Amino acid sequence: PELDLELGSSTQTSHRLLAYSDALLSIIATVMILPVAHTKIHPDQKLGESVQQLLLTKIAVYLMTFLIVTVAWAAHVRLFQVIELIDDVLALLNLACMMIITFLPYTFSLMASFPGVPFGIFLFSVCAVVIGLIQAVIVVYGFYHPHLLNQQIQVSENQNFYKRHILKIILRGPALCFLAAIFSFFFIPLSYLLLGLVIVFPHLSRFITWCKTKIVGHRDEEEASYSLETFSFYLSEPLSKERVEAFSDGVYAIVATLLILDICEDNVPDPREVGEKFHGSLLEALSEYGPNYLAYFGSFVTIGLLWFVHHSLFLYVTKATRLMGLLNILSLAFIGGLPLAYQLTSEFAEKSHNEIEAIQVSCVITFFASIFQFAIWTTALLHERETLHPFARYGGKEHAFMFAKLALYPCVSLGAFFLTCLLSEFSTEIFHLMQIVIPFAFLALRIFVRISLTVIKSVMSLSRRKVV
Amino acid sequence: PELDLELGSSTQTSHRLLAYSDALLSIIATVMILPVAHTKIHPDQKLGESVQQLLLTKIAVYLMTFLIVTVAWAAHVRLFQVIELIDDVLALLNLACMMIITFLPYTFSLMASFPGVPFGIFLFSVCAVVIGLIQAVIVVYGFYHPHLLNQQIQVSENQNFYKRHILKIILRGPALCFLAAIFSFFFIPLSYLLLGLVIVFPHLSRFITWCKTKIVGHRDEEEASYSLETFSFYLSEPLSKERVEAFSDGVYAIVATLLILDICEDNVPDPREVGEKFHGSLLEALSEYGPNYLAYFGSFVTIGLLWFVHHSLFLYVTKATRLMGLLNILSLAFIGGLPLAYQLTSEFAEKSHNEIEAIQVSCVITFFASIFQFAIWTTALLHERETLHPFARYGGKEHAFMFAKLALYPCVSLGAFFLTCLLSEFSTEIFHLMQIVIPFAFLALRIFVRISLTVIKSVMSLSRRKVV
Repeated sequence: PELDLELGSSTQTSHRLLAYSDALLSIIATVMILPVAHTKIHPDQKLGESVQQLLLTKIAVYLMTFLIVTVAWAAHVRLFQVIELIDDVLALLNLACMMIITFLPYTFSLMASFPGVPFGIFLFSVCAVVIGLIQAVIVVYGFYHPHLLNQQIQVSENQNFYKRHILKIILRGPALCFLAAIFSFFFIPLSYLLLGLVIVFPHLSRFITWCKTKIVGHRDEEEASYSLETFSFYLSEPLSKERVEAFSDGVYAIVATLLILDICEDNVPDPREVGEKFHGSLLEALSEYGPNYLAYFGSFVTIGLLWFVHHSLFLYVTKATRLMGLLNILSLAFIGGLPLAYQLTSEFAEKSHNEIEAIQVSCVITFFASIFQFAIWTTALLHERETLHPFARYGGKEHAFMFAKLALYPCVSLGAFFLTCLLSEFSTEIFHLMQIVIPFAFLALRIFVRISLTVIKSVMSLSRRKVV
Repeated sequence: PELDLELGSSTQTSHRLLAYSDALLSIIATVMILPVAHTKIHPDQKLGESVQQLLLTKIAVYLMTFLIVTVAWAAHVRLFQVIELIDDVLALLNLACMMIITFLPYTFSLMASFPGVPFGIFLFSVCAVVIGLIQAVIVVYGFYHPHLLNQQIQVSENQNFYKRHILKIILRGPALCFLAAIFSFFFIPLSYLLLGLVIVFPHLSRFITWCKTKIVGHRDEEEASYSLETFSFYLSEPLSKERVEAFSDGVYAIVATLLILDICEDNVPDPREVGEKFHGSLLEALSEYGPNYLAYFGSFVTIGLLWFVHHSLFLYVTKATRLMGLLNILSLAFIGGLPLAYQLTSEFAEKSHNEIEAIQVSCVITFFASIFQFAIWTTALLHERETLHPFARYGGKEHAFMFAKLALYPCVSLGAFFLTCLLSEFSTEIFHLMQIVIPFAFLALRIFVRISLTVIKSVMSLSRRKVV
């Protein structure tokens, strides 16, 4: 009894542990864009070739890291929806788990550099298995001390069912990785296939279930009663909105700060060079970097405003379904690509041949980042009763305003893309103009929406009057 | 009225805006350690010289950035304690403010590279003035729409007093910077002096007030009645605990993730070299990096456990006084230095002459990071009624346990430092042993504390019995 009391007093809410884990996971997911962005592209080289040669492996590492970390993050969210309170042992176990997750990018780097050597994929699989085992220990520890569990599970008679269910979710990936580790010594392509399966599995299984219910039309009686209990807990609120926000904030914040790091490392002139080349005038030396500063502010504004749109969107969202979570992660993967866009557009200073390509890549990245945000909104509208606040549903003024906010970036980036195709000589001017106009567009958006709504209303009332 | 209604409906809680700002500010404060850590030190060079030559300016940039960003962060905390709700305009203004804050490290880089040229300090001052102006606009906007303000200020009759007070706090720094900008063209040392004043001013003014009250013994009647209203709002809860935690989490998270970036960039062998030097054996090539992996896991464990101690400490803290905030920032500044410690200790692979120095620098950084955490605890104990939860106060079991947790790292790092002085031949072994033992020490701490408490109790009861 004394032992229990003592454990009880050391029980803590998991809020800060989760915030810290979210910050760690979001940074680790995004930070691998740095080696991509730092790949030096010779200004005389055509971007088309150099992208293929230099960037491809690094982009692959970035994407693999991003996707696998988001899978780990989703499992982590699921795990700590079951275990709501923590103690010191769980905090330390979670830290151990985080340490191994942060090591994953290195295994990907090895895989990308040595695709034919089994060691990279073997190391990755071992890490994944260890992560799975630590998380399983967390689950077992949690069910051994039931006061740490979610209230709903604590009072449930079916605790063992929940335990098995959550263990299944957590150990599914590591089991596949265990197979991959074994096969890596015999037949590497199969290992890579299994690795790919780990990433798509949660979405694939969900998609298959969805198809099945669409085709069969109804579920078996037994299955329905079986899944009823799970439904109330796992499916209706699969990702807590708070943690989706925390993870997204981490990605936006790290991407915004990586930019200044580049500026500080690349754009401080060498004192000797200033003395010789610019006759000691620092201002003259710095004016060489003008386009870099423009690119910096342009990229920062883009990231900031996309965060602003995301923020506005999630104010209206009450629950994030799995599909919305997936779309959000895809949007974030492109947000993570923005430092690359910055690097490309900041090369303007060197008058390279790749101006148009650089601008077009930037436009494409911005377009996809923003269109996936738009997709989150449309998906939310499909289930608006569950997912949206009442005043953001169809027809309201806020609805129109939200729509305009979300549509701005996709429209502008698409427009800029096609304009640079048509007017290739003015591509730089078009790009800079776009970057300067957009913040003001956001400020004026509310007024613009109000005017257009008034116009629509008056037109409609006019047409009605005519009918009468 | 319609305008008001519309503004009302677009009013939002500021929670997520603040979380995002905290993440941005903590990352920007810490990220400048990367250029320090990436400074290549030639293995044949003595660390003593190379530290002086290469690192000093970069460390200065890091520390200046860290301190000035924490000052900006403190002003930001103060500002959004007054303004509790936000709308779109405030969100965009805050983003603009963040953009300029992230640009500050660049101005420091210029200052460090060109200490004699006025442009660096001029640029910094201009940025600081613009930040101050944007924040002043936020204040004015907030007081123009009183429904956005803190409840206490909304009902107060003295709104104008509050407005002036918060404007004074926010514009104090920028006013000094404005002077610095002017003097930068005439007499640069004065500019640097003013800049230093911006950093220490908040603490200095507080210290002077404290001294005054100690010496005079009591305040003037008039002053007391004047400050009564401020006291209840500004001084008793000067930094919200939540934001101190969020800022600290950001620093710990970015420091932990910067490590893997180094591993990924430096420790992936070149495929050609593997083929030629190691006869195609990747495993053999990687075994060269053994000490790097050890250093990585050692550093990650240190950061993770220091976060764990910080987390445990703030579970017991109910309010963070200004002095506790300052100590926390000093602790974080040393935490930010840990990537440097990692870089130094990971150089062991190259059998450099600097082994002992590297270990000693690491020990010193760890010691200061942990001793300032300990200082937060002792400061909290001085005002334990206001700052601590009841069960963490003097005498409890949890109190003894907290004490042991906080004392572990200072003791171990100090011990390792002196051991390396005495047994300089085994310095590497001592360091690695320390890194491996500490996590287990944390796990066993609770048992250890219980045993020692039982021993103390029995000894005391024995001695009492003898007396009786």
